Amino acid sequence: MDAETLAARLTLTDEGLIPAIVQQHDSGEVLMMAWMTPETLAETIALGQTVFWSRSRGERWHKGATSGNTQDVRSIHLDCDGDVLLIEVDQGPDGVACHTGARTCFTPLVDVQPRS
Amino acid sequence: MDAETLAARLTLTDEGLIPAIVQQHDSGEVLMMAWMTPETLAETIALGQTVFWSRSRGERWHKGATSGNTQDVRSIHLDCDGDVLLIEVDQGPDGVACHTGARTCFTPLVDVQPRS
Repeated sequence: MDAETLAARLTLTDEGLIPAIVQQHDSGEVLMMAWMTPETLAETIALGQTVFWSRSRGERWHKGATSGNTQDVRSIHLDCDGDVLLIEVDQGPDGVACHTGARTCFTPLVDVQPRS
Repeated sequence: MDAETLAARLTLTDEGLIPAIVQQHDSGEVLMMAWMTPETLAETIALGQTVFWSRSRGERWHKGATSGNTQDVRSIHLDCDGDVLLIEVDQGPDGVACHTGARTCFTPLVDVQPRS
């Protein structure tokens, strides 16, 4: 699917972006959230690996191209409003998503008392 | 933790918001993504149920207050940049996250050919 066709399916931000939640396909672990353009989504589909848009660097970002921590794409979902992507990947048993070297970008923020 | 303390930990958008990924705690299913303010996050922690900020209505939104489809919070995580929340919830065996009546807001967008 090309970028133009994808763009017609997506609800983009004013900057032309869409958030992409990245999840490890077998464990269900949510690894990170990053941003895509229709062009980087089209490239993700064609390549079979995640390609994002770096807002800080203002450029295309093929994750793992430098670090080796690529993410092989297993499935791509879109939400009911068309404005959030969910991408199931395999980052491999030793793969890390986070620039800190952790498997996932998420760490506990606060303890929550379960409702009885 | 109060809203002011939370706000100091979070990196908010220009609109004062932070995206919150909501995941079913046991199945790992990603249910939806919505937005919070420091105030609705503080209320989420205090109440033990998800409370969002509705961008379309411009108001606080206690999910399920009308529909009954509340989400009991099990854990709250923050990502490495401080700008994305991951909230593990229990929406119950018959709970639905989506306004369409589906368990999850996400549906397949496109088939991806696995890399060999």
